[in-house]
Amino acid sequence: MSAFAALDELRGKGTHFTKPLALVNFGDEEGARFGLACVGSRLTAGQLTREQAHRLTDGEGVTLPRAMEAAGHDPDAIGPDPGRLARIGAFVELHVEQGRALDLSGDRVGIASAIWPHGRWRFDFRGEANHAGTTRLADRRDPMLSYAETVLAARREADLAGAVATFGKITVEPNGVNAIPSLVRGWLDSRAEDQDRLDAVVAGIEKAAGEYAAAHGVDLDVVRESFTPVVEFDHALRDELARILGKDTGLTVPVLGTGAGHDAGILSGSIPTAMLFVRNPTGVSHSPAESATEDDCVAGVRALADVLEGLACR
Amino acid sequence: MSAFAALDELRGKGTHFTKPLALVNFGDEEGARFGLACVGSRLTAGQLTREQAHRLTDGEGVTLPRAMEAAGHDPDAIGPDPGRLARIGAFVELHVEQGRALDLSGDRVGIASAIWPHGRWRFDFRGEANHAGTTRLADRRDPMLSYAETVLAARREADLAGAVATFGKITVEPNGVNAIPSLVRGWLDSRAEDQDRLDAVVAGIEKAAGEYAAAHGVDLDVVRESFTPVVEFDHALRDELARILGKDTGLTVPVLGTGAGHDAGILSGSIPTAMLFVRNPTGVSHSPAESATEDDCVAGVRALADVLEGLACR
Repeated sequence: MSAFAALDELRGKGTHFTKPLALVNFGDEEGARFGLACVGSRLTAGQLTREQAHRLTDGEGVTLPRAMEAAGHDPDAIGPDPGRLARIGAFVELHVEQGRALDLSGDRVGIASAIWPHGRWRFDFRGEANHAGTTRLADRRDPMLSYAETVLAARREADLAGAVATFGKITVEPNGVNAIPSLVRGWLDSRAEDQDRLDAVVAGIEKAAGEYAAAHGVDLDVVRESFTPVVEFDHALRDELARILGKDTGLTVPVLGTGAGHDAGILSGSIPTAMLFVRNPTGVSHSPAESATEDDCVAGVRALADVLEGLACR
Repeated sequence: MSAFAALDELRGKGTHFTKPLALVNFGDEEGARFGLACVGSRLTAGQLTREQAHRLTDGEGVTLPRAMEAAGHDPDAIGPDPGRLARIGAFVELHVEQGRALDLSGDRVGIASAIWPHGRWRFDFRGEANHAGTTRLADRRDPMLSYAETVLAARREADLAGAVATFGKITVEPNGVNAIPSLVRGWLDSRAEDQDRLDAVVAGIEKAAGEYAAAHGVDLDVVRESFTPVVEFDHALRDELARILGKDTGLTVPVLGTGAGHDAGILSGSIPTAMLFVRNPTGVSHSPAESATEDDCVAGVRALADVLEGLACR
């Protein structure tokens, strides 16, 4: 939407472009359907092999190839396409800030510096299903207990390291009120400013989980489902954006890091990439309460239009 | 199945009954479909008002009245029927033991003394959905943390009181890997030998949960979804069963309590009711690993046949 608005603004001014512009809307940035974040941009950047992509399956058992066919795409065309990427001079993504840095600094718009390294780990705690009313506590192998202890350990480890760690998704089998679970599967999302810190946080959580599981006679498997190293956005492009956005006002546009993954982070491995952020008064995101004022949204659209004009009219 | 086998055994012996026998298979003893355990026996015993029963809805939105109509029953006939209950002289249920008392005593068959009081409580922890990567720990209202603390408190309280308490079912919203949950809903199943002990356990868990929730800025609602007071099976019938089962051997048949709810427990409020248990070598139940030896199953069928002969041929 914001990119269309920026183009409208440029068309309204009669801007003449010397380079072609393209708008792209990547599918499933959140990984809500196939469990892997940024599937669309990963496919574009050739970061999924055909074999990896063909194994992706959604919650209803539909594979990515079948979903692509249903949407009119050829799943056998998956793979690197250096020619396609070489035709792209720069990629710019406009996004609401998912924190309060701009709100605290009093700026409407900022430029991204880097994306924290982040990943997802699946913790499978396997115990023994049994009757909740008749099984003595001492005879139980209840995986919910070691899951609960691990949730609390994750918070402690993250807090100590100045990182974040979250268990936001869980599945339980059989998930019956009167049954001790046979399986509690919890997903950990963790991110930190640098790789060493993240490694230490996750290792600490895994170690604690292993001890808790052993104490309850529960088996634990931990699988890293996805991982994205730190992304430093292209410095030359970042400086160019700062120059463009500051040229009329002489003000310095704030440059800030983010803990959130983005399609821009994926593409930055292949082409010069930048992000613009719009102020978020509460910092809330991924929630119906995520918001930005209309004035700030307009400021973001103008910033994107200025940047596109600066990059594509040279 | 065991009741059919007992009847076959009696028919094979040419037993002449002076009283009519009926076999009954109650629907949804576990409450898996409508969330309320023993719906079939509650309807039979008139323990659900028409209004209560008509409000029951399954996970797919089908109401109990619609399900009854689809099965050829009249939902408007729900309610007490003293005449029907008065025609039943005694009800006997044969069940695998859901603990290891018979295994430890070395007996194949036992008689139930009582069912522990037990209930189900729904704990709704409501926090604030937010981005797992960008929301500072200090800014979070994460209901998964207070849920986890409550799971561990439940274990501690039950352990102290010699009771049982289990969180075996959970639903999370939005249940996304990269989202702090807005809602964690956990179901507590708790049982104890007597009402005072159970009240103390649940009060202790509720108190702890409230403190944990408050510490995380999370709202807590606790709803008691079902409750069954202690059930003492009819003493005269229990003694009659012990007499019948001991008459050939002179041995005393063990009498034991159980933490599990049963249709027999519901009916015992209206008519003389008894239960027979068959030895369970592992105590495991509500699991594919639940088992009994063939010899013990045969002993259980013979015991039921003897009891039916003793009760219906007098």
